[in-house]
Amino acid sequence: MVRKLQVAVSGLGRMGARHALHFLGKTPRAELVAVCDPDPRCQEWAQRNLAHYGTKIFNDFDEMLAHPGIEAVVIATVTTTHAEQAIKAIGAGKHVLCEKPLSTSVEVSQSVVDAAKKRPDLKVMCGFSRRFDASYRDAWARMDRGDIGRPAIIRSQTCDKLDPSGFFVDYAQFSGGIFVDCNIHDIDLTLWFFGADSIVKSVYAVGITAVQPALKKWADVDNGVGIVEFWGGKIAYFYGSRMMAAGQHDMTEIIGTEGKVVVNGAPQTNLVEVHEASGVRREIPPNYYGRFEQAFVNEANEFTECCLDDKPLPMKLSAAVQAVKIGCALQESFRSGLKIEFDEIGSRVGGEQLLAKL
Amino acid sequence: MVRKLQVAVSGLGRMGARHALHFLGKTPRAELVAVCDPDPRCQEWAQRNLAHYGTKIFNDFDEMLAHPGIEAVVIATVTTTHAEQAIKAIGAGKHVLCEKPLSTSVEVSQSVVDAAKKRPDLKVMCGFSRRFDASYRDAWARMDRGDIGRPAIIRSQTCDKLDPSGFFVDYAQFSGGIFVDCNIHDIDLTLWFFGADSIVKSVYAVGITAVQPALKKWADVDNGVGIVEFWGGKIAYFYGSRMMAAGQHDMTEIIGTEGKVVVNGAPQTNLVEVHEASGVRREIPPNYYGRFEQAFVNEANEFTECCLDDKPLPMKLSAAVQAVKIGCALQESFRSGLKIEFDEIGSRVGGEQLLAKL
Amino acid sequence: MVRKLQVAVSGLGRMGARHALHFLGKTPRAELVAVCDPDPRCQEWAQRNLAHYGTKIFNDFDEMLAHPGIEAVVIATVTTTHAEQAIKAIGAGKHVLCEKPLSTSVEVSQSVVDAAKKRPDLKVMCGFSRRFDASYRDAWARMDRGDIGRPAIIRSQTCDKLDPSGFFVDYAQFSGGIFVDCNIHDIDLTLWFFGADSIVKSVYAVGITAVQPALKKWADVDNGVGIVEFWGGKIAYFYGSRMMAAGQHDMTEIIGTEGKVVVNGAPQTNLVEVHEASGVRREIPPNYYGRFEQAFVNEANEFTECCLDDKPLPMKLSAAVQAVKIGCALQESFRSGLKIEFDEIGSRVGGEQLLAKL
Amino acid sequence: MVRKLQVAVSGLGRMGARHALHFLGKTPRAELVAVCDPDPRCQEWAQRNLAHYGTKIFNDFDEMLAHPGIEAVVIATVTTTHAEQAIKAIGAGKHVLCEKPLSTSVEVSQSVVDAAKKRPDLKVMCGFSRRFDASYRDAWARMDRGDIGRPAIIRSQTCDKLDPSGFFVDYAQFSGGIFVDCNIHDIDLTLWFFGADSIVKSVYAVGITAVQPALKKWADVDNGVGIVEFWGGKIAYFYGSRMMAAGQHDMTEIIGTEGKVVVNGAPQTNLVEVHEASGVRREIPPNYYGRFEQAFVNEANEFTECCLDDKPLPMKLSAAVQAVKIGCALQESFRSGLKIEFDEIGSRVGGEQLLAKL
Repeated sequence: MVRKLQVAVSGLGRMGARHALHFLGKTPRAELVAVCDPDPRCQEWAQRNLAHYGTKIFNDFDEMLAHPGIEAVVIATVTTTHAEQAIKAIGAGKHVLCEKPLSTSVEVSQSVVDAAKKRPDLKVMCGFSRRFDASYRDAWARMDRGDIGRPAIIRSQTCDKLDPSGFFVDYAQFSGGIFVDCNIHDIDLTLWFFGADSIVKSVYAVGITAVQPALKKWADVDNGVGIVEFWGGKIAYFYGSRMMAAGQHDMTEIIGTEGKVVVNGAPQTNLVEVHEASGVRREIPPNYYGRFEQAFVNEANEFTECCLDDKPLPMKLSAAVQAVKIGCALQESFRSGLKIEFDEIGSRVGGEQLLAKL
Repeated sequence: MVRKLQVAVSGLGRMGARHALHFLGKTPRAELVAVCDPDPRCQEWAQRNLAHYGTKIFNDFDEMLAHPGIEAVVIATVTTTHAEQAIKAIGAGKHVLCEKPLSTSVEVSQSVVDAAKKRPDLKVMCGFSRRFDASYRDAWARMDRGDIGRPAIIRSQTCDKLDPSGFFVDYAQFSGGIFVDCNIHDIDLTLWFFGADSIVKSVYAVGITAVQPALKKWADVDNGVGIVEFWGGKIAYFYGSRMMAAGQHDMTEIIGTEGKVVVNGAPQTNLVEVHEASGVRREIPPNYYGRFEQAFVNEANEFTECCLDDKPLPMKLSAAVQAVKIGCALQESFRSGLKIEFDEIGSRVGGEQLLAKL
Repeated sequence: MVRKLQVAVSGLGRMGARHALHFLGKTPRAELVAVCDPDPRCQEWAQRNLAHYGTKIFNDFDEMLAHPGIEAVVIATVTTTHAEQAIKAIGAGKHVLCEKPLSTSVEVSQSVVDAAKKRPDLKVMCGFSRRFDASYRDAWARMDRGDIGRPAIIRSQTCDKLDPSGFFVDYAQFSGGIFVDCNIHDIDLTLWFFGADSIVKSVYAVGITAVQPALKKWADVDNGVGIVEFWGGKIAYFYGSRMMAAGQHDMTEIIGTEGKVVVNGAPQTNLVEVHEASGVRREIPPNYYGRFEQAFVNEANEFTECCLDDKPLPMKLSAAVQAVKIGCALQESFRSGLKIEFDEIGSRVGGEQLLAKL
Repeated sequence: MVRKLQVAVSGLGRMGARHALHFLGKTPRAELVAVCDPDPRCQEWAQRNLAHYGTKIFNDFDEMLAHPGIEAVVIATVTTTHAEQAIKAIGAGKHVLCEKPLSTSVEVSQSVVDAAKKRPDLKVMCGFSRRFDASYRDAWARMDRGDIGRPAIIRSQTCDKLDPSGFFVDYAQFSGGIFVDCNIHDIDLTLWFFGADSIVKSVYAVGITAVQPALKKWADVDNGVGIVEFWGGKIAYFYGSRMMAAGQHDMTEIIGTEGKVVVNGAPQTNLVEVHEASGVRREIPPNYYGRFEQAFVNEANEFTECCLDDKPLPMKLSAAVQAVKIGCALQESFRSGLKIEFDEIGSRVGGEQLLAKL
C-alpha cells in the first residue's frame, strides 16, 4: 500500500484553513493528521470540516508537534510566529512548509535558514506560491530555453482589491509594510527569473497613502513604487497597491534582449465576457486565492512528493532571506527618502561612502 | 498643377453626408463640386458645411448631372433609386461609386452591370466598404500568401446595436430584409475570400423576431442565421442581428486547412480599458461608421485614383450582383422554410428537381 | 469517521484513466476501489498508478461489478458499450456516471433512461463535462438572473486540433459522426441554456471533408455547420471541426434580448503572452482535457456528493437522449441534404408532410 | 469661399514629410504653400510628391519664412534647431507648431515660451501628439468626469522596436537621452492627467545598456526606469526602451482612488488575429507612426482650427518646458546615481540641503 505523508497544519486562519483542505482532499499522497489553532472559532471550523476525516485538533502548537507520527508541518500562523514555529518543527525533525515571509526581519529569517542547515535530511520550504503557478512556470520555461534572449528588465506588481473596512490599517502593524508584504512575491519572482545568485546593487522606493491615510501611523502606504538594480546590468521595478477597484491584480513582465514574456497582463476570473449596454466586461478575481488556488494545490503536492521521495525542493530557502532583505531595504528607502546601495558582494554601502560620493 | 477628380454626391442622408465630407477634406486628389438632395434639411446641412468650399447644391439629380465638369458621381440615396441614378450617370459618361446594394432585386442589379459593360472607359463600383478596411485587407493578404492553407469555411456576422426606436421596422419595408441589408457585407466578403468565381450550391436560412415583432409585417426578422454551400467543398455561414446591447459588431473568420484568420473577434472602440468596481470594461462602436470610417476614406481615395489614373477597380461590379443573388436567396429560404439549390453553373434547381429528389 | 463513496471505473482509455485519477486523488469523499479494462496495456498502467493505493484491477466488467462494496460505477469505455454497461450497473444497484453520449442511437440511449426510471434510488448521470465548467456555470448564472434578457440565439462550436495521423478517420466508424461526437456538447449546452423542455422544430446541417477525405467512407466530415430551430422562437447554430491549427477551441455565445454572454471567445492555455519578433502570441490547449480538466474534477466531486447525500443530480438524464436525438438529426440532415422537421410536441414530420408542403 | 490657413513645413525628414502630407491632403481648412529642407534628397521627394499641388520648395528656412502669405510654420527639423526656428517664425508673426521637444535644454525651451509670450496673438504649440490620440482623450475624459476617483499613480512607457542597425547610437548624440527623447511623452501625459500645475518633488532614474553598449559614449541607455514624485501625494513611474522585439509599445495607466484607466495595455496593429500551429498571434505597429498616425492628423486639423478661428490651443506651451525639466532631471539622476529633489515651488534643492539631510 502507498505510504502517505503525515501532515500537520499550524494556524487555521484564512490561508491555514485552505492549506488544511488542500492536504486533506487534493493531495493524494498526503494525509492531514493534525491541525492546531488557539482561536475557538478556528477549532470549531476544524470540528465541522476536518474531524470526521480523522484529523486531530489541537489548540497548542507544542502539543501538536508532540503528536506521534507527524512527518511534516505547514505553518500558516501570523508572520510573527513563523520563524519560531519553523525552528521548533525543524528541531523536532519535521519537514516544514512555512508561509511567506519567514519573518519581516532579515536576521530572524536567517535563523530559520541556519536551523535548516543543521538538518539537511529535512525539507524546509518557504511557500512562495507563484513559483507553483502554471503561468509563471510557463514563463520561466520560455525564458530558460532562450526564447526572449537574456532577461534584463523585470516589471512586477502585486495589487490588492480596495478594502474599505480598514483591514489593511490594522494589518500594517505586523505586515512589515507594503514592500515586504505585497512585493515580496515580486522580489521572489525576480530572484527566480534573474537567478538566485543575483546581487542587489541599489534599492529605491517611494509611496503614498491615497485611500488609507491611517497607514501613516505604521509608516506604511497603500501605493508604493520601487526600483531594484542588480549588479551585472539588470533592473527590476515594482508596484504594490491596496486600492484596486476591480479586484486583485498581480502581473509580471520579463523583458529580454530578444523578447518579452508577460504573465497576467489581462487579468480575468474565468473565460466569460459579457456584452451589455455599457460595453464588454469581464471580471477579475477578488483576491490572491482566486488567482492562485491551483498554485497552492500544486505546492502541497510537490512539497509532499519532495518529502516522500527525498527529492530536492524547487527553490532554495536562502532565496527567502534575500527576498526579505530587499523588501526591507525598499521599505527603509521609502521611509528615509534615501537610495540604499550595496557593493558587489551585496554588503550595504554605508553613510560614509554616500557622503564621499557627494 | 495637379488634376483633381471633379466629384458630385447624390443623397445627403447619413452616409451621403459622410461621403461628401470625405471627398471634400480627406481625398487630396478629388474636389467636391456638387451635391444634390431633395430634402430641405439636407440642403441646409450642405449650405452650412459645404457651400463655403465652393460646392454647388442641387435638389434634383438630373440638374446636378447636367452641371458642367462633373467626372464622377457618388450615389448614396435610398436603395430603391441606386440603380436608376447609376444608369443615368453612366449614360452621361460619369464614373460611378454606388452605395451597396445596387438593388434588392437581382435583375435590377444586373441592369447596372449591363449599362456599365457598354462603357468600359468608366469606373463603376459598388461600395462594399469592408474591402477597404485595413484589417480585412490584412486578413486577405495572409490568406492570399498561403498562411492558412486552403480556405474552406467562412463565418461572418453583421450585427447592429439594438435601436428601440422602431427605426428598423420602417426601414425593413425597403431594405430587402436582414439577409440582403446586413449580411450582404458578409456575402461580399465571402465572394472576396473564396474568390469571385465561387458558385453557390445551396442556401438555407432561418430567423426570428426577438425584439421587434412588428418586423413580421415586412416578412423580416431581427435575428437571422444562414448557411451557403459553394461547389468545390466550401461553406459560409452568417449571422445578422439588430439587437446587440453593446454596439455594432461585425466579425469574420476565414478558416483554412492550416490556420484561421479572425477579423474583429474582440470588438473595441479604441485602445482604452477601464478597471472599475464591476470589473474590466471596454466599449465598442455604436454603429458601422464607428467601425469603418477609415475604410470609407480609403474607398474615396482609391476610387479617385482609379478614375484619374485609369487603374482597374479593386473589385468586380458583377460580384455585387452575385451578392444580391445570394442575399435574396437567403431571404427567400427564410420566408419559405425551404432549402434553395443551384446546379454547378449556379442556375436555380427548381421545384421539379426538388420533388424528384424526394 | 467520514463515509467515502466506493467507486469503480470501467474503461481505462484516455478519459477513463483520467476519471480513475480524479476519483483516486482529487475527490476527497470518494475511494477508487476497482477498475477494469480488457486491454493489457491499460491493466499495466493501472498496476503502476493505482494498485499501490489498494485499487483492485479487473479485466472483465461483470467480475468487477460483482466485487463487494462497490457503490458507483463510472463508465468510460468505447461509446458502443456505454448503454449495456450502464444498464447492467443499474441492474446491480449501482450509481452510474456514464461518459457522453449514452449511445449514438436514440433508442439505445432511451433504454438507459428507462432502466434508470425503475431505480429512482440510484443516481444515473451522463457526463456532459461542460456543465461543471466554472465559466459555463458563470455564464448560466448571469443568464439565469436576467442579465441578458431573454436568451434567443445560441452559437456554439466544438473544434478539435488537426490530427494528421488519421486518428479521426478510424474513430469516425463508431463515433456517430461529427455532429453526434463533437456538437453533442453544444447541443447539451443549448438544452441547458434554453431549458431542458425546449422542443426542436427543425434541423439542418451541411459539411465538408477539407483535410480528411477518407472520412467519406463513414459518411462523416471534418467540418460541419448546423442550425437547430426550437419552437417558441429560438435558434441555435453549431460548428464542429477537426482541423484547428492552433489547438482545441470550444466556444459558446448566448445572445439575449438585452445582452450576450460569451464563453471562451479568446481561447488561451494560461495567462502568458509572449512578445517576439513576429508579434504577440499566446497558446491554446491542445485538447479538451487541457480546457476542461477542472470541470471533470468538479464532476467527480459533485457526482460523489449527490450519491452520498442523496441530492438531486444537476442535470436530467432525459436531456442526454434529447441531445442524441438532435445530434442524429443533424447527421441525417447532412447525409440526406434535407431539412428535418418536428411538430410542436417534437415528433418527426415525415416525408408525406414534406411533400404536401411542396 | 472658405479661407484656408497658409502653412509651411520646415524639415522633410521622416516626420516632416508626414506633416507635409497631412496638411496637404488631410486638413481641409489648410493649404500647404511651402516646404524647406537643405537635404537634396528631401527636396527631390518634395518635387515628386508636393510640387504638382503648387507647394513651393525651399532649401533655406529664412527664404521660406520670407515667402509672402505664409501664416503658420510647422517645425520638424532636428531637435537642435527647433527653438531657433520657432523663435524666428514667431518674430516673423507666424503661428508655430513645433515638434517635441522644444529643446533638450530647459533654458532654451524657456526662450521659446518667452518669445511666444510677447506675441499673444500667435498660436505656438509643441506637438505632443498623444494629446490628440482618440484613446488618450477617451481616458482623459473618463478621469475628468470622475470615473476613477482622484488620480494618484501614473505608469507610462514608451518603448521602441529594437533597431539592430545602430541608428539609436548615433541618434543618442543629439536626442538628449532616452528619458528626454522617449519618456518626454510620458512626462507630458503625466502633466496632462495630473494637471499642468503639478509640482515635481523628486526625480530618480536608473538605466542599462542591454543591447547597445555603444550608447555609453553618449551617457545614454537602451532601457531606463524612472520615478517622479509630485507634491500633493502623486507618483508617476516610467519605462523607456529601445529593444522591444515585437514593435513599438507605448502604454499608460492612470490609477485613481476608485478605478483605473489603461491605454494600449494590449497593443495591436489592427483587428486581426491569426490562429496557426504555434498558437494565436497578433502583430503590433513597428513604430510610433503606426500607432499615432491619426493623432498627427487630428493635431494638424486642430492646430489649423485654432489659428483660423482664434481658439485657445488644447495645451499650454509652458507644459512643454516642464516636461523637458523633468526629462533632464531623470537623465541627470541616472547619470549621477543621485535622487534629485525639488521644494514645494519646484525649485531644485541643492547639494547643501542634500548634505544637511545626511
